[in-house]
Amino acid sequence: MPKKTPTKSETPAPSEDSRSAAHTGASAQGDHRYAVGIDFGGTFIKMALVNDDGQIVARRRIPTSDLSTRAGWVDAMAAGILELAGEGPGDGAVPLAGVGIGVPGFVDFERGHIFELPNVPGWSGVPLAGLMEERLSLRVRVDNDVNVMATGECTFGAGRTYQHAVFMTLGTGVGGALLINNRIYRGAHFMAGEMGHMSIDMHGVEGPMGRGCLERYAGNRRIVERAVRYLEAGQRSMLDAMCEGDRTRIDPLMIEKAAEQGDELSKTVYDEVAECLAAALASITYLLQPQAFIIGGGVGQSGPILYEPLQRHLRERLNPLFADRLEIKKAALGNDAGVIGGATMVLLE
Amino acid sequence: MPKKTPTKSETPAPSEDSRSAAHTGASAQGDHRYAVGIDFGGTFIKMALVNDDGQIVARRRIPTSDLSTRAGWVDAMAAGILELAGEGPGDGAVPLAGVGIGVPGFVDFERGHIFELPNVPGWSGVPLAGLMEERLSLRVRVDNDVNVMATGECTFGAGRTYQHAVFMTLGTGVGGALLINNRIYRGAHFMAGEMGHMSIDMHGVEGPMGRGCLERYAGNRRIVERAVRYLEAGQRSMLDAMCEGDRTRIDPLMIEKAAEQGDELSKTVYDEVAECLAAALASITYLLQPQAFIIGGGVGQSGPILYEPLQRHLRERLNPLFADRLEIKKAALGNDAGVIGGATMVLLE
Repeated sequence: MPKKTPTKSETPAPSEDSRSAAHTGASAQGDHRYAVGIDFGGTFIKMALVNDDGQIVARRRIPTSDLSTRAGWVDAMAAGILELAGEGPGDGAVPLAGVGIGVPGFVDFERGHIFELPNVPGWSGVPLAGLMEERLSLRVRVDNDVNVMATGECTFGAGRTYQHAVFMTLGTGVGGALLINNRIYRGAHFMAGEMGHMSIDMHGVEGPMGRGCLERYAGNRRIVERAVRYLEAGQRSMLDAMCEGDRTRIDPLMIEKAAEQGDELSKTVYDEVAECLAAALASITYLLQPQAFIIGGGVGQSGPILYEPLQRHLRERLNPLFADRLEIKKAALGNDAGVIGGATMVLLE
Repeated sequence: MPKKTPTKSETPAPSEDSRSAAHTGASAQGDHRYAVGIDFGGTFIKMALVNDDGQIVARRRIPTSDLSTRAGWVDAMAAGILELAGEGPGDGAVPLAGVGIGVPGFVDFERGHIFELPNVPGWSGVPLAGLMEERLSLRVRVDNDVNVMATGECTFGAGRTYQHAVFMTLGTGVGGALLINNRIYRGAHFMAGEMGHMSIDMHGVEGPMGRGCLERYAGNRRIVERAVRYLEAGQRSMLDAMCEGDRTRIDPLMIEKAAEQGDELSKTVYDEVAECLAAALASITYLLQPQAFIIGGGVGQSGPILYEPLQRHLRERLNPLFADRLEIKKAALGNDAGVIGGATMVLLE
């Protein structure tokens, strides 16, 4: 497990926040403090008890299909938090510094108020932090899930040595979060980091967020669409054998495997996606000059098939003054980034 | 003269910086502190004695054609600073908090070391702050000129009410600077803010900074080139009468005047330039969600001919959640932004 870095461990200053001091119980379990991190997804609520080294001590996973009402979700989370607090090392109870929740949508981070979750109906205008704090008498933080994952990655994962980094999730969509001066930067109204909406082609594909948005060219579905388009145009590829003639079965992993075996169509697809990403990453680098990009999400776990052309296209597009001082890193915490990040958000305060 | 805002005046904390305490002499002239700001250009060195309300008390302007060596420049600046210190209110002498210098190029801000000034030969690798501090026994700060102008605008000019803003200069080139959490953000290696190199078209015009850089589409020369291209293609315009047949005389101001009189070609040119700018500004807004863009430089002083289509294209490209919370402002300090910003850089510390 990666260790907390000196730069990050300097960040918490309990004396600055009386709520922190009230709940920490720092010496109750050896040297550790604990918090519960919650990753609030469309299919599962993932929860974990996490210590201040970013280590997961206990877990819960609740299928959201079991929960029919918003009150049901809140009940399930509250029950899970109380159970997890009893599952410290040696199954002993631990005091909680608080709870950190990442949700897929727009949040007023300061108030812990959910504006809207585009893919989770019934969660517009919910003061989630307040509801949970009242219920549990614990400090509760709520943020956008990408910010939460970035907090995890930039404290205990691939970004732990940086003060200035850009975190990108590359999955079904393309999301982002910004680490600036060792803190997540949320913008004027908590909506910063929306890299997926940046335009890479001002005359490009139209969408609700303008023309030529990165998300319309990269991400899961776009990779598959590109491959299928080439197949439908009559290009030959081992993909047709791999999917046994059912092109709806093609996914980014299948394309990656084909590419590793030398499939030209598949290599072209990843090269094109990498070039689109490089265009956006170069623009961000000229604007922010981060030390590194940390790339998470399903597609972010790809191998050299993605990262080799990404580095190459970035070098084509960046002046060496910028290219030589930039690192591209794969996210390191995988599916745990959300729960670790949620807990970390509270423990760092 | 605009007043310093509460947010900015909270920033200086003399106790954090012993050099500050040593040089301020805060009560020597009523309530004011003073510094000299220097705008180090290719044609002139502009200098001013500025108080901590951002008011210019005295000025100097030295033509660089008079200065043949680097030592000559340093001598001239040092002499000018000493003279200005004797020209406080009522021509009395004032103690200086220090000197802030903006230079057109890459600078290590922390050390006050010039890496390179692309358009001013002989200034690569110069420890300018150190040279001047030794000479004057005063605190000296050196930064990129766009960061310095942004410091001026964001303290006493059009950006004085914001904590998060993006400053853009739109002149011969396109430059930028970022105000984040009330401070100029310089990036990992002091090179952040290079908006002119952001790509608005990944398949666009190639240049040393990648493909489709904003600077290749907007800025002084590009505006004129567009107009001349249309004229050469045979389009009719009152520009040909205005320039008396000599198309080399066409400049952005002439095109603006023609547009104000209804010239279609000229309106088209500004609309196209505005659309290119909007593409970049939309991407920056999705990424950083600033409260405002502050637009300076010669072209930035244009009237509705630029700002009307800029606002319109931005609305086409931004989700209302972002568009409704964004302001576009013209810079307010004009040619004084550099000297006021230079002094402010020191006075804010």
